[in-house]
Amino acid sequence: MTQKIGFIGLGRMGSPMALNLVRAGYSVTVYNRTPEKTKPLAEAGAAVAGSLAEAASNAEIVFTMVSDSTALQDVVLGPVGLLDSLQPGSVLIDMSTVDPKVSRQVAEAVRARGAYMLDAPVSGSTMLAEQGTLSIMVGGEESVHERVREVLLKMGSRTTHVGPNGAAASLKLAVNIIIGVTMEVLAESVVLAQRAGVAPEIAVEVLSNSAVASPFLKYKAPQLLQPLGPAAFTASMMQKDFTLALQMARETGVPLPATAAANEVLTMARGLGLGDHDFAAVTTVIRQLSGG
Amino acid sequence: MTQKIGFIGLGRMGSPMALNLVRAGYSVTVYNRTPEKTKPLAEAGAAVAGSLAEAASNAEIVFTMVSDSTALQDVVLGPVGLLDSLQPGSVLIDMSTVDPKVSRQVAEAVRARGAYMLDAPVSGSTMLAEQGTLSIMVGGEESVHERVREVLLKMGSRTTHVGPNGAAASLKLAVNIIIGVTMEVLAESVVLAQRAGVAPEIAVEVLSNSAVASPFLKYKAPQLLQPLGPAAFTASMMQKDFTLALQMARETGVPLPATAAANEVLTMARGLGLGDHDFAAVTTVIRQLSGG
Amino acid sequence: MTQKIGFIGLGRMGSPMALNLVRAGYSVTVYNRTPEKTKPLAEAGAAVAGSLAEAASNAEIVFTMVSDSTALQDVVLGPVGLLDSLQPGSVLIDMSTVDPKVSRQVAEAVRARGAYMLDAPVSGSTMLAEQGTLSIMVGGEESVHERVREVLLKMGSRTTHVGPNGAAASLKLAVNIIIGVTMEVLAESVVLAQRAGVAPEIAVEVLSNSAVASPFLKYKAPQLLQPLGPAAFTASMMQKDFTLALQMARETGVPLPATAAANEVLTMARGLGLGDHDFAAVTTVIRQLSGG
Amino acid sequence: MTQKIGFIGLGRMGSPMALNLVRAGYSVTVYNRTPEKTKPLAEAGAAVAGSLAEAASNAEIVFTMVSDSTALQDVVLGPVGLLDSLQPGSVLIDMSTVDPKVSRQVAEAVRARGAYMLDAPVSGSTMLAEQGTLSIMVGGEESVHERVREVLLKMGSRTTHVGPNGAAASLKLAVNIIIGVTMEVLAESVVLAQRAGVAPEIAVEVLSNSAVASPFLKYKAPQLLQPLGPAAFTASMMQKDFTLALQMARETGVPLPATAAANEVLTMARGLGLGDHDFAAVTTVIRQLSGG
Repeated sequence: MTQKIGFIGLGRMGSPMALNLVRAGYSVTVYNRTPEKTKPLAEAGAAVAGSLAEAASNAEIVFTMVSDSTALQDVVLGPVGLLDSLQPGSVLIDMSTVDPKVSRQVAEAVRARGAYMLDAPVSGSTMLAEQGTLSIMVGGEESVHERVREVLLKMGSRTTHVGPNGAAASLKLAVNIIIGVTMEVLAESVVLAQRAGVAPEIAVEVLSNSAVASPFLKYKAPQLLQPLGPAAFTASMMQKDFTLALQMARETGVPLPATAAANEVLTMARGLGLGDHDFAAVTTVIRQLSGG
Repeated sequence: MTQKIGFIGLGRMGSPMALNLVRAGYSVTVYNRTPEKTKPLAEAGAAVAGSLAEAASNAEIVFTMVSDSTALQDVVLGPVGLLDSLQPGSVLIDMSTVDPKVSRQVAEAVRARGAYMLDAPVSGSTMLAEQGTLSIMVGGEESVHERVREVLLKMGSRTTHVGPNGAAASLKLAVNIIIGVTMEVLAESVVLAQRAGVAPEIAVEVLSNSAVASPFLKYKAPQLLQPLGPAAFTASMMQKDFTLALQMARETGVPLPATAAANEVLTMARGLGLGDHDFAAVTTVIRQLSGG
Repeated sequence: MTQKIGFIGLGRMGSPMALNLVRAGYSVTVYNRTPEKTKPLAEAGAAVAGSLAEAASNAEIVFTMVSDSTALQDVVLGPVGLLDSLQPGSVLIDMSTVDPKVSRQVAEAVRARGAYMLDAPVSGSTMLAEQGTLSIMVGGEESVHERVREVLLKMGSRTTHVGPNGAAASLKLAVNIIIGVTMEVLAESVVLAQRAGVAPEIAVEVLSNSAVASPFLKYKAPQLLQPLGPAAFTASMMQKDFTLALQMARETGVPLPATAAANEVLTMARGLGLGDHDFAAVTTVIRQLSGG
Repeated sequence: MTQKIGFIGLGRMGSPMALNLVRAGYSVTVYNRTPEKTKPLAEAGAAVAGSLAEAASNAEIVFTMVSDSTALQDVVLGPVGLLDSLQPGSVLIDMSTVDPKVSRQVAEAVRARGAYMLDAPVSGSTMLAEQGTLSIMVGGEESVHERVREVLLKMGSRTTHVGPNGAAASLKLAVNIIIGVTMEVLAESVVLAQRAGVAPEIAVEVLSNSAVASPFLKYKAPQLLQPLGPAAFTASMMQKDFTLALQMARETGVPLPATAAANEVLTMARGLGLGDHDFAAVTTVIRQLSGG
């Protein structure tokens, strides 16, 4: 029998993820705050719910892919949230990037309701979301992870159980500080080389063929050269994740000197009016601050 | 006719690089300050010189692969240096990681002697040196680069002309701050995740399959878990390169906030007695500083 | 007619401050969560309230001097908070160091109740509190400040109206980052000089007679030499204020690179088990991290 | 009998210092690279030397007050330097701010010549130099310090023997990082408070009456409000001292995270074209980077 799935949040990542579930043959009911985004899903065969409750009430698995911690709280715990509509034994899987404390708070409420919760944030771009090749980190009970793994693998090429509830949300932030600091040091490196007579195009080419050539670097290479083009992930969004990571670090007592330094450059990016540009804009900040 | 090559400096990198030249059939004369390191090369067919002058005097190309700027100055410009033995029209190729200012100083002296100089530092580990698959950045005249390219490709899988004399030495430092800062943020990330309940092994596995999974990360993954094993590149050596990069940045007016922050963690590593360990020891520093 | 005053919070600072009001002849009713701290005040002539409501219900001015933002919210807005007991036209003066956002939130609730609110945090040690020579920053309506100024001057030697509600709470955090960063650079300086052969006692003596010899430096000089003695203000408390300041900075878009760097050293202090020591413990951190 | 003194270097600090010696009745011979600066001294009664050798050859004490380490090396050890003109038993007192290594190198050469060397850098502004109320740190043999103390006290209000040769040069750098980092955090603080609604004039007034109100802060208060007026000590000069301090820290293994972070802001000041402005220009940097 076909598994029934609810999917909340059809943004840049959520839409292609939900689409992959529909295409895989699941019975998917989608919900989005602004209804027009549901159209492509409806055309592909998804049912469209008029409320969060409706999206959740018949589902065996409910996915959420929302913008931040507050949105997750609203969607699950808010006055018109879906908590009371969750079926006993169903699984709520939050794939957003949120504060691990909020993730654990939601997990507790869901458990109290007789359902299960996993935090399952993803690593990967919109393109990987479309291809269904995201990397998925999973926090929560391992047996629950096993139960839903097949469904997750319609959206991602791998899932890894990383620890109890909140662990995956934490790891996602830990991954994002790597991404943000790496971008910052790439910016420092390319501008430094440029001042020493190496054209940025050549520096980026050398880096793209060096030991530090991660998929991330290759993907971002054009933005190292043209930082202010279309934004995949804005400087302000990156700073939101940095803020959560630094807060978590303070609570758990972990010093993050490089992250803290890079975070101030993100603030500078915002101060220079680049907050809504891609976080590659730190390159523009370093370039402007070095006289050119 | 076989090309005659001199090769100075048979350390961890220089030895396998020189060996690849011997195996490629060139007529190679090697020199090393401590003679015992010349044995494997001699067995492979290299001639062994008793002095720098002897290594250089008949060579069409002289390679240097030494530990630092001072060593390069000594080897070329010192009282028993090879400068006066360089053949007119020959090419001195320094593959060490040195201060770009020193590289340019040597280039000028070599030019005054009627010979040519390239700075050609490499990106890659001992393993890549053995395989002959290093990445080689080249600074100096492009026509000279063209002339020696075939020889360089016996040691590396690619060479890139990046600018005038000193440009490649500069780019090498710019690459090394990426490597050092990346290691620092990996340390911050793994310890942060650990405090949130993610076992380091799992964090490293997830990172190794994520967008930030560079060859460097994969190569260093075991050391993220066991930072104090055998050292490929020590914390003190990394700090030497950071110091050169920060000095160059100050001279050219480029702010490097993340590099500066990571550099202080390298100092902490030295202060905690870890200077002669691999620079992955920053992981130990962050771990110790977060209460264990 | 004698002015009636309520005073909530008899900690290290609150007790001597309230005592100065009693001695100045005001009719003071005190309240403290743990009642034993009220004894010295009672002996000096204060009335002791059994509840927050009782402390506030007859007062023309109510002072709060509590540990943090959450305590302020509890005391004013909580289920047994004093909000509903405030007399119309009375003035609530919070002298604690709190999140400016919380201060403004409380001010709004107080205004809705028909009373007035000032944020009036203080600069100065317990000693200055005893002497009644604190510096008092005041946020809120200037006319309200004028009205209560005479009373404030029983606790401090000067009051300065600095802006609307929340402005003084903000300025207090801005002052505290100066104090915390100054301590950090004093630590760096003294350890650096020591490694160069200058005994710390001599370095501190020279500093105490130099252009940077603030009252703060003179007051802290003994702790620069013996950082782990009795704590006036712990590393953890300083980090709480740094966290609020960094959060405020992020919200308003102000980069704080030195503060961010010093904040990570406070985290290190906590990680090394020094969180409950005076924030002068950063000296111990820098010393330990420099191999001695 | 009147003591004979040579004085080399009549810049902003050197001129008033030398003048105080003339006025105190010593027989002073001055030398400056650009001769016009000697006029006011000549008018006050100083002899003017035409060469370094002449300034040193009859002197019992020779003072140097030059711009940096290279200038000191030139003046003492250079081809036309004064070393060979020093009288046996005479004392060379360098009051400049220089690299401690260079100071020790010069001390060794002076000792080899049969004379004595003290490093005696000063703390204080041009105004204090004019008043003869500088603070003087002294490195070298204590007995030599005793011998010249009376003369030093014509320029300063106190002298402190702080350690062997080089110790005072080191301590001077350690003092300067306090001054530079303090300016940076004052900048951060004032801009942060401003964004929260506190006018900079009021913030500075409060700070000037707080525990952090050092003579330095009071002296710099106008520049916190108008950072780009006439420069007492430029951002570039401050960075030169920071660079020496950071280099010394790296050599002795002392982490300086706050200093390193503030140093990058000095680089930013230079990048924004403010290098020749007073180092108070960091306020302009932070303000520009926070959106205005």
